[in-house]
Amino acid sequence: MTRTVIESKTKTVTIGFDEPFCVIGERINPTGRKKLAAELEANDFSTVERDAIEQVACGAMVLDVNAGVVYNSNPNPNETEPPLMTRMINIVQGLVDAPLCIDSSVPGALEAGLAAAQGRPLLNSVTGEEERLEMVLPLVKKYNVPVVAISNDDTGISMDPDVRFGVAKMIVERAADYGIPAHDIVVDPLVMPVGALGDAGRQVFALVRRLRDELGVNTTCGASNVSFGLPNRHGINAAFLPMAIGAGMTSAIMNPVRPVEMEAIRAANLLMNHDSNGTDWIKFARVLESVREGTAFAEASTAIASAGRAGREGGRRRRG
Amino acid sequence: MTRTVIESKTKTVTIGFDEPFCVIGERINPTGRKKLAAELEANDFSTVERDAIEQVACGAMVLDVNAGVVYNSNPNPNETEPPLMTRMINIVQGLVDAPLCIDSSVPGALEAGLAAAQGRPLLNSVTGEEERLEMVLPLVKKYNVPVVAISNDDTGISMDPDVRFGVAKMIVERAADYGIPAHDIVVDPLVMPVGALGDAGRQVFALVRRLRDELGVNTTCGASNVSFGLPNRHGINAAFLPMAIGAGMTSAIMNPVRPVEMEAIRAANLLMNHDSNGTDWIKFARVLESVREGTAFAEASTAIASAGRAGREGGRRRRG
Repeated sequence: MTRTVIESKTKTVTIGFDEPFCVIGERINPTGRKKLAAELEANDFSTVERDAIEQVACGAMVLDVNAGVVYNSNPNPNETEPPLMTRMINIVQGLVDAPLCIDSSVPGALEAGLAAAQGRPLLNSVTGEEERLEMVLPLVKKYNVPVVAISNDDTGISMDPDVRFGVAKMIVERAADYGIPAHDIVVDPLVMPVGALGDAGRQVFALVRRLRDELGVNTTCGASNVSFGLPNRHGINAAFLPMAIGAGMTSAIMNPVRPVEMEAIRAANLLMNHDSNGTDWIKFARVLESVREGTAFAEASTAIASAGRAGREGGRRRRG
Repeated sequence: MTRTVIESKTKTVTIGFDEPFCVIGERINPTGRKKLAAELEANDFSTVERDAIEQVACGAMVLDVNAGVVYNSNPNPNETEPPLMTRMINIVQGLVDAPLCIDSSVPGALEAGLAAAQGRPLLNSVTGEEERLEMVLPLVKKYNVPVVAISNDDTGISMDPDVRFGVAKMIVERAADYGIPAHDIVVDPLVMPVGALGDAGRQVFALVRRLRDELGVNTTCGASNVSFGLPNRHGINAAFLPMAIGAGMTSAIMNPVRPVEMEAIRAANLLMNHDSNGTDWIKFARVLESVREGTAFAEASTAIASAGRAGREGGRRRRG
């Protein structure tokens, strides 16, 4: 059975066909977040800290950390990104116990992240591009970590799902040459917007099933891409995630601070029999009730989790 | 390709693997609705009329009609149900153009419904019980209508999905003996509550896939049963429906007056590429916006549909 093990210093998360869906929080990333980028250049990590705590409270099991900011003072990311990655990882792993996903296109930042992260982080990412394969796979081998493999190559992103499957297969084979097992490759089959390509959803469902059946690999995706350009995007995402999970998708890089998508994932976990006795669902229903009464999602999640712990401790005391 | 054709006098609905999911409205049914039962005994059909109009407005494509009321004045449904079925069908098909699903356990009511319904109604239902097979299949053949086949038999409802598959297969074979084709059998694989049987969801997804691949039949279910006994049931139903649709489920008998489930189904249609250019989704997003502003779902649906028609007519005038 395919199990991708990701670890922090104190916590293990397993991505697998018989595990609850792995939510990788995407928020700690300055790409497209001008305010966060300016804060980071000014050595202000308050948003990073808040994003770390809030995402874990809302149910993120792994946190993606991307330090891809272009400084005004120094436009060369090869110089600025590695030390920033180190700094951000140290801050995040000092605050929360979730394992990390080190996300960069800059080789030095990946290596800095690998050196700084405790445990067994997920590396994000390798692609089928020749240069990237030769740069990333030795790091994956050296640090013995799992890696996200995005199914594009030197010819770009193919609209043909068979070509994308072929790229994933090639990456798995190249990794094997380095002694990296298939269970340490988490394939991103690339989700296209259904508004631009009507068959985008069906393509991904079929591709995920094939990746699982033929290559035996775990899968991930940038889930929200499917709804790009359409109205009421959360409604599309909230149907896409359960359908992808039903097809065999085992993780997603996504924003966990939105209750709509998290509700869909928790319901899908229940329906896949990955929520024993519905314990998580019943607890989450109380969070949603609190959200409907006006409490913020992260706050409601934290309150219900603390109440649960207090209840369990109370129980132990009574038994003692 | 499996196509189950259901017709009213003026409208055709096709259930099929390449069609939008077929929503069969379940509301016109006095079972468990004491007020409606009392109204029917008193010859008051105002709720039936409202349920017919409202369900179609909200997106029901077929309307289930069940006259299973036990009168205080006459407790014998074999006497009371057939004339009531005739009356209810005449009222409903006089009001809306949706095809009907004739739903009864009383043989005389099924036949009365078949005689009254215009076009090609769906018959609900046959089971694998010997007596039921011998009673219903001749009616299906005589009236040349499609039929819902529920996968239980004289031994009851099996918890083993292989047994339920076997019952469905047997019904399809028995129907073939009467010259009834598989595409006129819509199998209900029976959805168990996931709160009682953790594997209930996965069982149904696997079963639906098998029914489609091995028997080539369309499928239906009482979707809300999956969430029985658990909190926040709509959230579970709204994940179950897209997952079932992804597995190949092609219809459900359900309450269409709830926007949560209808949103999930419309998103799933979009993701299955059964909503060309996202036309329905974009229109539905406007309905949801109106619902969020406080308009009732049926009312919002009607308003947006009328606006769409007026817009198209306006367009024609401008081009003319």
